[in-house]
Amino acid sequence: MDGRECADLLARVRSLRPLVHHITNTVTINDCANITICTGGAPVMTSAPEEAEEMVKAADALVLNIGTISTGQLEAMLVAGSQANRSGIPVILDPVGVGATRFRTDCIARLLYELRIAVLKGNAGEIGVISGIGGTVRGVDSGGISQDPIMIVRECACKIGGVVAMSGVIDIVADSNRVFVVENGSPLMGHLSGTGCMASSVTGAFAAVGEDMTIATAAALATFGRAGERAATKACGPYSFRTALFDELSTLTEDDLASHARVRVVDDL
Amino acid sequence: MDGRECADLLARVRSLRPLVHHITNTVTINDCANITICTGGAPVMTSAPEEAEEMVKAADALVLNIGTISTGQLEAMLVAGSQANRSGIPVILDPVGVGATRFRTDCIARLLYELRIAVLKGNAGEIGVISGIGGTVRGVDSGGISQDPIMIVRECACKIGGVVAMSGVIDIVADSNRVFVVENGSPLMGHLSGTGCMASSVTGAFAAVGEDMTIATAAALATFGRAGERAATKACGPYSFRTALFDELSTLTEDDLASHARVRVVDDL
Amino acid sequence: MDGRECADLLARVRSLRPLVHHITNTVTINDCANITICTGGAPVMTSAPEEAEEMVKAADALVLNIGTISTGQLEAMLVAGSQANRSGIPVILDPVGVGATRFRTDCIARLLYELRIAVLKGNAGEIGVISGIGGTVRGVDSGGISQDPIMIVRECACKIGGVVAMSGVIDIVADSNRVFVVENGSPLMGHLSGTGCMASSVTGAFAAVGEDMTIATAAALATFGRAGERAATKACGPYSFRTALFDELSTLTEDDLASHARVRVVDDL
Repeated sequence: MDGRECADLLARVRSLRPLVHHITNTVTINDCANITICTGGAPVMTSAPEEAEEMVKAADALVLNIGTISTGQLEAMLVAGSQANRSGIPVILDPVGVGATRFRTDCIARLLYELRIAVLKGNAGEIGVISGIGGTVRGVDSGGISQDPIMIVRECACKIGGVVAMSGVIDIVADSNRVFVVENGSPLMGHLSGTGCMASSVTGAFAAVGEDMTIATAAALATFGRAGERAATKACGPYSFRTALFDELSTLTEDDLASHARVRVVDDL
Repeated sequence: MDGRECADLLARVRSLRPLVHHITNTVTINDCANITICTGGAPVMTSAPEEAEEMVKAADALVLNIGTISTGQLEAMLVAGSQANRSGIPVILDPVGVGATRFRTDCIARLLYELRIAVLKGNAGEIGVISGIGGTVRGVDSGGISQDPIMIVRECACKIGGVVAMSGVIDIVADSNRVFVVENGSPLMGHLSGTGCMASSVTGAFAAVGEDMTIATAAALATFGRAGERAATKACGPYSFRTALFDELSTLTEDDLASHARVRVVDDL
Repeated sequence: MDGRECADLLARVRSLRPLVHHITNTVTINDCANITICTGGAPVMTSAPEEAEEMVKAADALVLNIGTISTGQLEAMLVAGSQANRSGIPVILDPVGVGATRFRTDCIARLLYELRIAVLKGNAGEIGVISGIGGTVRGVDSGGISQDPIMIVRECACKIGGVVAMSGVIDIVADSNRVFVVENGSPLMGHLSGTGCMASSVTGAFAAVGEDMTIATAAALATFGRAGERAATKACGPYSFRTALFDELSTLTEDDLASHARVRVVDDL
């Protein structure tokens, strides 16, 4: 997988303008809507169970994010997710803070049990928790893992039967028989609320137009990371970085991405 | 109607600082609060039915936006809207995504049936749907209309018995016997989530201090569009545009607006 | 209390990275999360009653903000607040808009009755209302007070048995036997939604690591105000000010704060 493949997928997003339906948290919901537009997609963000099914029927991907989940929102996610599965559109799940509380762990267990998840994307602690091998979560931040991250991501991918992405300084993306690492990004992304959520939205837009979910996910993270690298050169702090991040993703050329995407296959499994 | 009329209304907003009560979506709620301040008004944003009536009694205008409507929020809108009608303050309705789902269409039908709406402001697809003549909506974006937009806006204005504004590259504002077109704005406004919602908030502030709702609406859209024009000259992408949009609206002089507002009466009805 | 004491507390926040749990409004929730990170803390923002107790057990401070309170959210606040009291972590209460409606006044009465509040932080009108001496609130803005503000803050501190901070051009912080005034800040902070909420989040981070809640509160407001002063020099309007405010808080050096914090003890009580 090379940078050209990333660039081709970005071009597809921009030309097809996929509708990415989100059921997400109230903290970063605006960021997620805007990052979807900057990627080239069209966001829609309702959590009302009354319209979940109908809205999903029009959508090209569904992003579920449990950052501020409630019992009512979980029901909407299950309705929307079932429809997404029936429609054959990819479901991206961001298990924000899983492991921090019993409630979050139960919500994720139910979502994973009832829905077919195309891509699960979380931080190290979250993926560690879901893998069953172990990880810790403090609030909504990763508290770390005690095992080799690649091993954990692979184990988790086998367990859920889908693609798993662990975000961090280096992102790891795996399915049951392939592992990619994505080395694009900037440390400033860790100093801003919502970059993890935004990465899931970008993944939603790529998954909506991709054939291979593993490649779409790696390409999405490389694209978002590349925008972050460019933004970092213009930042005086986390908020000017934020402004530049959206600007740079929106104006990122496919040639720049083709040259600078750093996605590497891990062979030594 | 000329630029001076727009400028005089902006001056009134800034001097009277109207309280604009919003019951709105969770995606752009922060944008709506801040744009209200930048216009010169004071925002308040609660959706609790327990306080809707009392909060509206203190307000000078009410903005209802169904972007992430729920059954509970609809009830709050009905309570608040009834009080606004009793108090004689204008109700601005933004029918975000109407037509995309049965639920949204039913919510709008009920709001239009039970409340007296001073200004209905939506995109082409949304106004097309409500007019009954036809329009399509994809998620929360306009999917287009098949008839002459001025005809649709006029038809819709007659149907609801109030002012109707259709936002787009050119905004159209009509009541049962007048049509204005507003030609201020920037294409960058379409690359940012929430500019439609913000336009409704600005309209709320102008309607709160205006005598003639049609003129107040046209003036609000010209003012917001003029801020967008100025912001576009300072933008490197959608997010630096966003920063500049709020700054420019806040610092827009009445003289600049008087000279550059482009509101035109459509005579050939 | 001098600037060095402020700087030492800021250094402690940055080194300990306290987890600040928020139950807050949907308008400024993103601002509160990001300002907590910029201060040096780690935010978590859930309102679900199912996880309130467990999340608070992991937290170092709890910030309650009634900006868009609902009956359900009040219940979560009571559960979370009780656990915070049992755990011995400080509870910061921001009574947004208290006095504007009966519902808000009742919510605050119940929170003050059932919970031990370490720091109550509001605008002049809000603190005036809670003091019982009198104040007016218009929407969520202060409508003013009729008595000497220092007297009102002291009275309120005695009444609630905790620290009270009244924000304004000059901030006043008092407990039952000390009064501090904080003179840092910028008028631009009044032209932006959410600066009051952000001040409460910064206070939460400082209170989490401080021994003396009165000093922690004064230091937090001086720190936030100093970031505002620096940001004002870079602003072209309220939104470029906003970007700079987050950047400046994040990059504020402890030496700068030690030199420029303006906290003064009021002796003539």
